[in-house]
Amino acid sequence: MFDCVALVGATGAVGRIVLDQLHARKFPMRKLRLLASARSAGTKVRFGDEEITVELLEPTAFEGVDLVIASTPDEVSAEFAKWAVDAGAVVVDESAYWRMDPSVPLVIPEVNPDAVNNHQGIIASPNCSTTQMVVALAPIHRAVGIRRVIVSTYQATSGAGLAGNVELESSTKAALGGEPHKPETFQHPIGFNLIPQIGSEKHKGYTSEEMKMVYETQKILGDDTIAVCPTAVRVPVAIGHSESILIETKEPLTAAKAREIWEQADGVTVVDDLDNQSYPMPRDCDGHDDVFIGRIREDISSDCGIAFWCVSDNLRKGAATNAVQIAELLARKHAEKQQTA
Amino acid sequence: MFDCVALVGATGAVGRIVLDQLHARKFPMRKLRLLASARSAGTKVRFGDEEITVELLEPTAFEGVDLVIASTPDEVSAEFAKWAVDAGAVVVDESAYWRMDPSVPLVIPEVNPDAVNNHQGIIASPNCSTTQMVVALAPIHRAVGIRRVIVSTYQATSGAGLAGNVELESSTKAALGGEPHKPETFQHPIGFNLIPQIGSEKHKGYTSEEMKMVYETQKILGDDTIAVCPTAVRVPVAIGHSESILIETKEPLTAAKAREIWEQADGVTVVDDLDNQSYPMPRDCDGHDDVFIGRIREDISSDCGIAFWCVSDNLRKGAATNAVQIAELLARKHAEKQQTA
Repeated sequence: MFDCVALVGATGAVGRIVLDQLHARKFPMRKLRLLASARSAGTKVRFGDEEITVELLEPTAFEGVDLVIASTPDEVSAEFAKWAVDAGAVVVDESAYWRMDPSVPLVIPEVNPDAVNNHQGIIASPNCSTTQMVVALAPIHRAVGIRRVIVSTYQATSGAGLAGNVELESSTKAALGGEPHKPETFQHPIGFNLIPQIGSEKHKGYTSEEMKMVYETQKILGDDTIAVCPTAVRVPVAIGHSESILIETKEPLTAAKAREIWEQADGVTVVDDLDNQSYPMPRDCDGHDDVFIGRIREDISSDCGIAFWCVSDNLRKGAATNAVQIAELLARKHAEKQQTA
Repeated sequence: MFDCVALVGATGAVGRIVLDQLHARKFPMRKLRLLASARSAGTKVRFGDEEITVELLEPTAFEGVDLVIASTPDEVSAEFAKWAVDAGAVVVDESAYWRMDPSVPLVIPEVNPDAVNNHQGIIASPNCSTTQMVVALAPIHRAVGIRRVIVSTYQATSGAGLAGNVELESSTKAALGGEPHKPETFQHPIGFNLIPQIGSEKHKGYTSEEMKMVYETQKILGDDTIAVCPTAVRVPVAIGHSESILIETKEPLTAAKAREIWEQADGVTVVDDLDNQSYPMPRDCDGHDDVFIGRIREDISSDCGIAFWCVSDNLRKGAATNAVQIAELLARKHAEKQQTA
């Protein structure tokens, strides 16, 4: 059991869910501290029967902290993570800042749990679009090998935090009322619209969000030869990222075999009965921790491929749940060490 | 000039736009008749300064009619088209019923205008998702050859007619108010949701809508070797279908060259400046006749491919505009014949 866990960014869209999950999953800790920027410091946040006062995130804040779970913007993580590591804590970080650092493991517990063993104080949780895709890819990759992935995303507004959902609602209401609406969080009005840009231009016309799906997938699966062609699109959905994915496998794979593999995979729920209009949809996946897979079929444009549709709650498995699962891995290791000592 | 043109299905979502376009484009005809089912027969519809009374669609309705433009459900087309052809009319049909009939040309005027010459009374206009995709594919296919197409669609509710948009609005309002909503037009609630099913199961787990994009693409481009892997998804957008498309070309093609080809292509507008957040979006394409292309980039998962994003008003180029353009081809041929005679 950890003596003290700190949650950084507890008042954000993801932080709130981390808090719920720590409580619901009875995370083994004696004390929980909440840290945030000056704007939120001093506010009180409910944790089960307790009320915890949010403390200021500052260099001296991590004294006595064993484990940090953090959901903050990249630039915040760039600064505080070192304070925490210097104070002797291990940081599970959800920002993009540390993910591609060679000394930082990038972990999905169902996929590469052993990677946590090699940390130097920081462990990163992947991008939300990447996480749900790689949960789906990993068991197929283990079974027959994946050569190439073509993915088009349908990403929810909550990927941009609470402000994203506020803007989805205001933009939708403005459109319904025939009124103008000035976007602030997104580049363009999102109500009844699609925005084929998430992040900014990063590489050869691909955005930063798209390139995360390339680099992070290769790092988590430990295979730089996997080719990925991503297109990331924001859609007017509040919670739940969806992905249309085509994988080219190294060996042929029937749809039935792929379905069987996914039915047995950790963290995956198969919802796949087209005749009965049953397949994953954001509305149904909102609030669930699994990655949902449906529309499983053989690629009719090649001899070696599987096409499928994948939905997951981007705030949960895409962020909060995955981070808490990494923390649970660390807690088990910590308990083993305590028993040995 | 045609003596008499009949519009079948004038009161539907597409029929209304056909009517507008016939007027706006000054279609060469002396008389326009409107035909519809008993439900709409007798109603009056404005056409420019005229008011036209909708007549009943019945076997004897096509006497004296030279040209029919029809936007009806498949089963209606299956019946009336023969009445029209027997009466000596040429039918431009927007339903799916005749498209794959070997004796029926399937025409996109920018792509295969000469196909109209071989009709036997019926000419079909393609599926809305197919049309915009093939307008984009054709000039690339002519330049370097296309081997394979992987496409994920983001389809507007108006693809299901006026009822689709009514349901988008009611479903969205119910969701905003936290009230239940029983879908009627779609399989599931569409407000703030995605439905990865359009049509019913047709072939190996692909839906009828998806298989249209395979068969119709091959027929229009006159090349059965083009492989297509489609995923069709309904999104909460009223007007404008969007598509994330990856094409594998027979010869390498740079993004710059692809952009140049599309900039010179008929019926295409390139909107492609990611740095300035400029790309096609449904909101901007609503009410326009062109196919809009952006996010043009080389496939980073292969040596021979182009990824892009394509949006078009599904009621216009996807339906009404394409049918009127086919009718204009026929009008030019008719005029030439009249001059020769």
